[in-house]
Amino acid sequence: MAYRDEQLSEEKVFKDPVHRYVHVRDRVIWDLIATPEFQRLRRIKQLGTTNLTFHGAEHSRFNHSLGVYEIVRRIINNFQDRPHWNKEERLLCLCAALLHDLGHGPFSHSFEKVFKLDHEYFTQQIIVGDTKVNQVLERVNPGFSRDVADVIAKTYKDKLVVSLISSQIDADRMDYLQRDAYFTGVSYGHFDMERILRVMRPIEDQVVIKSTGMHAVEDYIMSRYQMYWQVYFHPVTRSAEVILSKILQRAKVLFEAEDFAFKLEPKHFLSFFNEDVKLADYLKLDDSIVFYYFQQWQEENDTILCDLCERFMNRHLFKYVEYSPNQPIDKWMELSGLFVEAGIDPEYYLVLDSSSDLPYDFYRPGEEGERLPINLLMPDGEVKELSRQSDIVEAISGKRRTDHKLYFPKDRIEALTDERIKHRMKEILYN
Amino acid sequence: MAYRDEQLSEEKVFKDPVHRYVHVRDRVIWDLIATPEFQRLRRIKQLGTTNLTFHGAEHSRFNHSLGVYEIVRRIINNFQDRPHWNKEERLLCLCAALLHDLGHGPFSHSFEKVFKLDHEYFTQQIIVGDTKVNQVLERVNPGFSRDVADVIAKTYKDKLVVSLISSQIDADRMDYLQRDAYFTGVSYGHFDMERILRVMRPIEDQVVIKSTGMHAVEDYIMSRYQMYWQVYFHPVTRSAEVILSKILQRAKVLFEAEDFAFKLEPKHFLSFFNEDVKLADYLKLDDSIVFYYFQQWQEENDTILCDLCERFMNRHLFKYVEYSPNQPIDKWMELSGLFVEAGIDPEYYLVLDSSSDLPYDFYRPGEEGERLPINLLMPDGEVKELSRQSDIVEAISGKRRTDHKLYFPKDRIEALTDERIKHRMKEILYN
Amino acid sequence: MAYRDEQLSEEKVFKDPVHRYVHVRDRVIWDLIATPEFQRLRRIKQLGTTNLTFHGAEHSRFNHSLGVYEIVRRIINNFQDRPHWNKEERLLCLCAALLHDLGHGPFSHSFEKVFKLDHEYFTQQIIVGDTKVNQVLERVNPGFSRDVADVIAKTYKDKLVVSLISSQIDADRMDYLQRDAYFTGVSYGHFDMERILRVMRPIEDQVVIKSTGMHAVEDYIMSRYQMYWQVYFHPVTRSAEVILSKILQRAKVLFEAEDFAFKLEPKHFLSFFNEDVKLADYLKLDDSIVFYYFQQWQEENDTILCDLCERFMNRHLFKYVEYSPNQPIDKWMELSGLFVEAGIDPEYYLVLDSSSDLPYDFYRPGEEGERLPINLLMPDGEVKELSRQSDIVEAISGKRRTDHKLYFPKDRIEALTDERIKHRMKEILYN
Amino acid sequence: MAYRDEQLSEEKVFKDPVHRYVHVRDRVIWDLIATPEFQRLRRIKQLGTTNLTFHGAEHSRFNHSLGVYEIVRRIINNFQDRPHWNKEERLLCLCAALLHDLGHGPFSHSFEKVFKLDHEYFTQQIIVGDTKVNQVLERVNPGFSRDVADVIAKTYKDKLVVSLISSQIDADRMDYLQRDAYFTGVSYGHFDMERILRVMRPIEDQVVIKSTGMHAVEDYIMSRYQMYWQVYFHPVTRSAEVILSKILQRAKVLFEAEDFAFKLEPKHFLSFFNEDVKLADYLKLDDSIVFYYFQQWQEENDTILCDLCERFMNRHLFKYVEYSPNQPIDKWMELSGLFVEAGIDPEYYLVLDSSSDLPYDFYRPGEEGERLPINLLMPDGEVKELSRQSDIVEAISGKRRTDHKLYFPKDRIEALTDERIKHRMKEILYN
Repeated sequence: MAYRDEQLSEEKVFKDPVHRYVHVRDRVIWDLIATPEFQRLRRIKQLGTTNLTFHGAEHSRFNHSLGVYEIVRRIINNFQDRPHWNKEERLLCLCAALLHDLGHGPFSHSFEKVFKLDHEYFTQQIIVGDTKVNQVLERVNPGFSRDVADVIAKTYKDKLVVSLISSQIDADRMDYLQRDAYFTGVSYGHFDMERILRVMRPIEDQVVIKSTGMHAVEDYIMSRYQMYWQVYFHPVTRSAEVILSKILQRAKVLFEAEDFAFKLEPKHFLSFFNEDVKLADYLKLDDSIVFYYFQQWQEENDTILCDLCERFMNRHLFKYVEYSPNQPIDKWMELSGLFVEAGIDPEYYLVLDSSSDLPYDFYRPGEEGERLPINLLMPDGEVKELSRQSDIVEAISGKRRTDHKLYFPKDRIEALTDERIKHRMKEILYN
Repeated sequence: MAYRDEQLSEEKVFKDPVHRYVHVRDRVIWDLIATPEFQRLRRIKQLGTTNLTFHGAEHSRFNHSLGVYEIVRRIINNFQDRPHWNKEERLLCLCAALLHDLGHGPFSHSFEKVFKLDHEYFTQQIIVGDTKVNQVLERVNPGFSRDVADVIAKTYKDKLVVSLISSQIDADRMDYLQRDAYFTGVSYGHFDMERILRVMRPIEDQVVIKSTGMHAVEDYIMSRYQMYWQVYFHPVTRSAEVILSKILQRAKVLFEAEDFAFKLEPKHFLSFFNEDVKLADYLKLDDSIVFYYFQQWQEENDTILCDLCERFMNRHLFKYVEYSPNQPIDKWMELSGLFVEAGIDPEYYLVLDSSSDLPYDFYRPGEEGERLPINLLMPDGEVKELSRQSDIVEAISGKRRTDHKLYFPKDRIEALTDERIKHRMKEILYN
Repeated sequence: MAYRDEQLSEEKVFKDPVHRYVHVRDRVIWDLIATPEFQRLRRIKQLGTTNLTFHGAEHSRFNHSLGVYEIVRRIINNFQDRPHWNKEERLLCLCAALLHDLGHGPFSHSFEKVFKLDHEYFTQQIIVGDTKVNQVLERVNPGFSRDVADVIAKTYKDKLVVSLISSQIDADRMDYLQRDAYFTGVSYGHFDMERILRVMRPIEDQVVIKSTGMHAVEDYIMSRYQMYWQVYFHPVTRSAEVILSKILQRAKVLFEAEDFAFKLEPKHFLSFFNEDVKLADYLKLDDSIVFYYFQQWQEENDTILCDLCERFMNRHLFKYVEYSPNQPIDKWMELSGLFVEAGIDPEYYLVLDSSSDLPYDFYRPGEEGERLPINLLMPDGEVKELSRQSDIVEAISGKRRTDHKLYFPKDRIEALTDERIKHRMKEILYN
Repeated sequence: MAYRDEQLSEEKVFKDPVHRYVHVRDRVIWDLIATPEFQRLRRIKQLGTTNLTFHGAEHSRFNHSLGVYEIVRRIINNFQDRPHWNKEERLLCLCAALLHDLGHGPFSHSFEKVFKLDHEYFTQQIIVGDTKVNQVLERVNPGFSRDVADVIAKTYKDKLVVSLISSQIDADRMDYLQRDAYFTGVSYGHFDMERILRVMRPIEDQVVIKSTGMHAVEDYIMSRYQMYWQVYFHPVTRSAEVILSKILQRAKVLFEAEDFAFKLEPKHFLSFFNEDVKLADYLKLDDSIVFYYFQQWQEENDTILCDLCERFMNRHLFKYVEYSPNQPIDKWMELSGLFVEAGIDPEYYLVLDSSSDLPYDFYRPGEEGERLPINLLMPDGEVKELSRQSDIVEAISGKRRTDHKLYFPKDRIEALTDERIKHRMKEILYN
């Protein structure tokens, strides 16, 4: 039997707290899960620093990747005998689902920002590069790894396949909303996925939702909205992320400084500092490596690096106030000046962070072309964009919400002995 | 106001997926949670290698410690106006609950076995030694840290307080059964804790259970039984633990070998190898440090160490067969000999592992003195040991169950080219 | 001890699937639950005909009433030591919560419409009239029953007490959303009630919500929206209700007809037909009495009554189409005429039914004065109306949604032999 | 297409709180659900009087019947391509599952005892008799109704089919344990059904369980044990059942008495009193009819009947004490005499009730031949009886547990004015 079609002698299951069981029957999927590149995802937390706010959120990307695979598996099971569905694409979809996050590194958000990386690029590299994952995929058929990479990059020719993996109601989002809700323990994140899966229909070049399931989709969009603002953009989580970014920034600055030498050679970070990251280097980095360095850096000869690492490791975070970037700049200048005067480097200790989300949007000519709308399949066969049918979605459609916060070490300010500086700082911050 | 009685201006809550919310009002508790020693528990997984079997089990000891605190808090709330209950012991109980696992290190089971350590010893040390935790406790009153340590060591004078923290139905067990069930996703581990808490009664020197709640306790004991055999002793988890122990053993052997030098100095492990672990060294070790070394050790000049580390990191585990230690020794000798002949060192690659559990027992004169029975408070005020009242508990009481498994790298055997050796090995293993 | 303050020797609990346990300590509450008037609520389904759509929805108003009581009990527990809260009102609130639905009869909606009744009037009557409930309340203190009735009627002087029982986020709604979701099994209806209860604060004349809990309230409002449209206004449920109303209407018509005599004297219905319902008569009616008559009426000498009863009992319902009441009346006239021509009385077999809901609204001068807004308590002590702070609530605030459906017996139309009539009917209905 | 194979144009689903969704695709099943005989199950509570103890337990047999059907549907889905499984039996299994409880009447237990009925007999009658259900079944093929009846009666030739519907781990039990737990809200009743379904295997003449699923089965058996003792045999529920039986007994006695005439003719009960129940009479009885009479009988001219009916309707139940039937008879005689002396007829007011359960048993020669054991399928293909493999099941296997309680109206005793009688009664009862 061709490797592509090989089945395990008995179905294997993973006990999953969100989907109850993840079912694997294909030998290819089983072999992909066993690769070092995929196992590495066990050492990368799905939600980065969120566990410092919601202590339950310690689950890994391994977890989530299996979940996305399982959802796609169920969707395809329902599609098997439907028109428009090409059964040949089954394995391709399953592989793309399983591997879509393969290129995530530790604390992706901060690393990407500081070192100008892109996890999607690395996902592609791991799939088509010199890896065990690539070997498994190429055994299916030469060029198969390229197809998988294309699906994830949304450039694959069959847009129906792409929309299964990446759309405003894809398997990725449906898994992470439920999974992150489960592990954090928040009551948002519930929606009737079983119903959504049952009303999904493949049409020519996209997945649509039978209109009878519209309310389940509304519920999903509201879940998404709440999860973003209650969990993903939680100000305490962002405080930890701010510190993390500043650690990375400081380490890079020190690395580039002529007069500084690390006691411990930052071997794992060299290619990141040099902004020339090889795949092999990238694959060696995971949460535990980062924690190792942060522990060690507490003993380096730089008070800023030590202090920031101590804060991160011991959850000794920055406090925050609302702060609009549209405020006249003079306040900011004065505050920044006071920090300098007080010996607290504002570059690392006075940080403006903004979060922004668009809960749902349909395609608007000339902007954000990729944001494909969610389409409903009406009883008469017509396809209608969701916000035309749903009052609630219409109400929030296209409304971007943004939140700005200013982060700083309140403890340092409180400890100041110069009462004038201290008083004026607080005056600016809290008024 | 005395530090002991200080309350936060507003109650703080932690969102907890198991108990919904963990409530903190005491300043002392808040300060203890903020110590580096307690925050360190975030980097130590509650269930060690179990996540390699149940991928959801990635939760930390930090999680569990908050949960135990919360359960004790609720019990004490119910006790407030009951006879026998000494309100003065409230804070002591809360602190002991929160800190009871403070001395756990990474993968405790394996580390303790290989390096002859005892996490309970380190819990004591952290509480009474030179730590931030100790500073907070001593601020309550001098000697308070000693009291907390004594409660955890079960030597505290008030046995009622001790039994709240350590008994066959204590807050520790009630939390971990539910928590581990939640994160693994298994359907065992459910019991009506709310009811058990409501029927707990303090009497002179112990906590007893009103007999009307007996069935909830039965359910708890059955949960415990199932969790032990389905989760804690799962043979795949044990396979990972076997490999982990062998890595540590091998590293120690290499360290002691005159003709071997590590490329990377095993700084964090030195005091462990020398079996003279200082508190500061102990506190520096967590899961991420272990993972760092295991990643690096894959590049050391020792094939056994490299191979075992690769296996652990990539979940490339040993397979197993049932194996009774009571079998005649000659088979074992022959198998061991065949391994040597095949160039697979049996010291590291042929490992017998045994698990054993006693689901419930009452005190039997002369043995296991510490295993205090669960006692029921009958309507007439009499106290009766549980197994006298419960048919089901009686049926399993005192029945120890043990399981022996032999672990080995099946892939290595399959790869042997000498068909005679290979055939004979499999003959012995699978018959 | 005064009866008002009497406590049960031991707390009683009811196992409740929604709130886990309902706790009763007050003798007065215990005695109220034991009255025949309250026990009667066991024989009245909370959701009338909804179980014909969602088969799990068979729960009674007894269930719900205990739930509302329990929520108010928890709120008051949190209020105990807060400013503005008058501890003397505790028992009053508990009684009002428990008894607020006491006057509901079977299938209230239809009965009220056909017989021009008002369950709120009967709730008042049961509380202040000659009943066991009244005896219990008056034992607390003379006039206490009047106070309870006033709270439920929203005329009680202390508006804070009223707002606990009746507002846009009261205990009534919080219970029924969760309870109806639980019993139907739909995934809507989840929100973090525990958090809402924790952020409720009594102020001078109302209950407000601390602004930190705003998102939990948003979630509650979305739950409410979804429950209305997915469950309460479900078109199949309304079909059963339409039939039920028509049965009652037909029975009344027959009763009033000079040339018709019931085989079975409709003893329980006489005072309803005569529109002069005495309290004692009202209390005798429950779901089972209605079912008894509907079973018996299948054998009366009137084909319409028989047919409608058969349909109701055997879930042989009407079908429906969308139908706007704003359409030109000629279509309706024609359709109605065709029904007459076909021998299907349109008065009973062609029914327009409309449902309408306003998910949330704040007070608008001159209209709907009773709809008190949900107010948030900001960190600075200011009180702000919810929709000013919440984008999502703002988006749906004040937007009434209405749905019109036309119900008819499709089976009767399909069975017509006159092809012209049949064809034309379907043409009008389905185009 | 043959009626047997007809599929609905689109799958229909029922939202079910226990199994999420019940799926129907076969026209035959859809038609069976629509029959009056099946719809009648909506008016018969699954757990009779249990809702007087656990107020959530108001669900009907309609609910449960759909659930059993759904479980069997899922099992068969898994069986489709397995050896030993005869695909031709699919529809037969589904029909038998759906209809297995069709002959249940209201409060079956009490009615069967007092009127010497057997619901299994009526299930058979409804299936093969002159009913709509029979018409649907015979349309499949002549004789099909007989086959369905035989499967339910366990006399069908294919024992594999029978064991699916009736065994110690059948779809019936798996549904009611979970369903009753869900509606009562108790924490027992959880087991991993999904896993059990996945490890069920058809062999020659029975369903067996792959040994890897043994622990899920243990959990199921423990659930069953707890549900029996905590829910089904709850003493308060039994008190209501005792009163119900005594009402029926009293009504029959009055009916047979020459000197008594009912004000209201007990039309629905006549054939029951005469112990000659026709199918049509039987089908007319449901919970609501019973409640109608009990309401009316409170006004008959018999104080015992009135009192018992008032007690049942208003949950004014008997109290109870433990009472062994093995006690010397003289105490009983004395107590009975005292009741007579006090004017409380012991025939109706002093009732011994016994409950007894055998949690699991295997076949023991010569006794209880029908109790087929649960068999495990070992890895080597051998079949082993469960209790030989499971320590826990072995421990409780064959151990019958019985509970005896004596019920009486405590209020009547307390109200006695003759202090001697009262004192002596209490002395006997409470010592």
